[in-house]
Amino acid sequence: MIALIAGQGQLPVAVHRALKTAGRAHVIAAMGDVDPSLPDVQPFRVEQLGTFFAALTDLGVSQVCFAGAVARPQIDPSKIDAATLPLVPKIAAAMAGGDDSTLRVAISLFEDAGFEVTAAPQLVDGLLPPHGDLTAVKPSEGDIKDIARARDVHGALAGADVGQAVIAAHGQVLAVEALLGTDWMMQSLLQAAPAQDVADVFSDPLGFATDVLAGPIQDVPRWNPRLPEGGVLYKAPKAGQDLRIDLPTIGPETIRGAIALGLNGIAIGPNTQVLELDKTIAAASDGGLFLHVLA
Amino acid sequence: MIALIAGQGQLPVAVHRALKTAGRAHVIAAMGDVDPSLPDVQPFRVEQLGTFFAALTDLGVSQVCFAGAVARPQIDPSKIDAATLPLVPKIAAAMAGGDDSTLRVAISLFEDAGFEVTAAPQLVDGLLPPHGDLTAVKPSEGDIKDIARARDVHGALAGADVGQAVIAAHGQVLAVEALLGTDWMMQSLLQAAPAQDVADVFSDPLGFATDVLAGPIQDVPRWNPRLPEGGVLYKAPKAGQDLRIDLPTIGPETIRGAIALGLNGIAIGPNTQVLELDKTIAAASDGGLFLHVLA
Repeated sequence: MIALIAGQGQLPVAVHRALKTAGRAHVIAAMGDVDPSLPDVQPFRVEQLGTFFAALTDLGVSQVCFAGAVARPQIDPSKIDAATLPLVPKIAAAMAGGDDSTLRVAISLFEDAGFEVTAAPQLVDGLLPPHGDLTAVKPSEGDIKDIARARDVHGALAGADVGQAVIAAHGQVLAVEALLGTDWMMQSLLQAAPAQDVADVFSDPLGFATDVLAGPIQDVPRWNPRLPEGGVLYKAPKAGQDLRIDLPTIGPETIRGAIALGLNGIAIGPNTQVLELDKTIAAASDGGLFLHVLA
Repeated sequence: MIALIAGQGQLPVAVHRALKTAGRAHVIAAMGDVDPSLPDVQPFRVEQLGTFFAALTDLGVSQVCFAGAVARPQIDPSKIDAATLPLVPKIAAAMAGGDDSTLRVAISLFEDAGFEVTAAPQLVDGLLPPHGDLTAVKPSEGDIKDIARARDVHGALAGADVGQAVIAAHGQVLAVEALLGTDWMMQSLLQAAPAQDVADVFSDPLGFATDVLAGPIQDVPRWNPRLPEGGVLYKAPKAGQDLRIDLPTIGPETIRGAIALGLNGIAIGPNTQVLELDKTIAAASDGGLFLHVLA
């Protein structure tokens, strides 16, 4: 029996579907909101983690798979139960660290409780695409330079546990992913404006938001005139991150954001998951973007 | 005679005032829009840089001071004049690099033309504050950890030529400054929302924008519920940057943004300029923020 520890987005949906297709019995548990299509989601609180472990063991669970981002929970000390008390020092240490250290502690908590932690690509076929160009459009010479520039910045942040993605255009770094993730990073570049122009930016925000959220996205003009044309999104695991949790992930929404931002394409590193691969490639092709997987 | 090469913001205004007060004759030149209070601004184009150098020399200029950010110009090859032709290879190289390499080339172009490049703090008294706490409020133990966290990320980016500022809260990195600068970075955190909540974010955008732009800023609620409480802004020169141009700068607007974002305070490194020091300290104090200068 396997437990899917579900977070936000479509990755847990993909894991659930793959398990169902393979006829593998599984339970789905979540600490917060998840995609409404997931059936029978068992909520759990970090304050009752010990009790949750016992319940999983009673159900015959021996494996767990984390899928989808989870917001760092606020701990309510009054809700910590007896079975969780021995875990508190480790939980507290996890909360105080960066994302990677938090996830490392989360993995070790599950392992100490006797569970094997399985990465999503081991359960979902095709989640890690082959390397090379997935689209007919290939990165240009300028794009290759921008990929290298973004990769350098990504590499410089090795060990700093910041983010998995960087956007570069014409040698300039437009954004470095931090706490709020890739989609947010792209959206912030689209929406946020120079301080002196706030009123302008908000002159037709609902119209703009509607345009961005409905298609065809190709027609959405670039919102922020301070950005250079073109550019690339580079996404890859942080150096040294445990590859069993929180693998970088892109999907149709990422393509949508990249098109809205006017990027030339997306380059991903090894161990970077692509959700709905066919749909993602089609969306990139429709938008004239390249989608390149680095070896 | 000194030439003030003015960019955006209040720093060129401060340099102009200091030169005027000291009775030093100076000319003011600019490639783009500058604060309207600056008198007799001579526009120049990078395509006519050679002619501009000759004009400065004719005026008896021997020193130049760059002050304020300048957008990277678009070069129109048809506008390059004869006096600038010999400089084109260097100008092209500058355009292709990151900010620091661009600025290094800019400095060398002016030096090759016989000008001494002077940093703003050599002309404006008090632009670099003494180290220590400038406010009665001091960073807490948690703030000191967040300053160290932000500093680590800033340090990791040494040589990557990305940005001068990082925001951290509770050990998590909220933002890393990139192309669009510190004020934009803070504003983007305030305004941009999770992808699924665009409609919510824009439900009362004009009201929000008005609240942010008019006082009292302390009453503006934090806009983005995905951010942890508190946090610090750390700003310092990029490792290895030439300290004659583009020193990191904060001022009353930075304090305003930090208050709106709900930060606990600001820590700056050595060689970080503070515009309108008294006003900046007063704004931080009014907002309950610490303002700490690292040695």
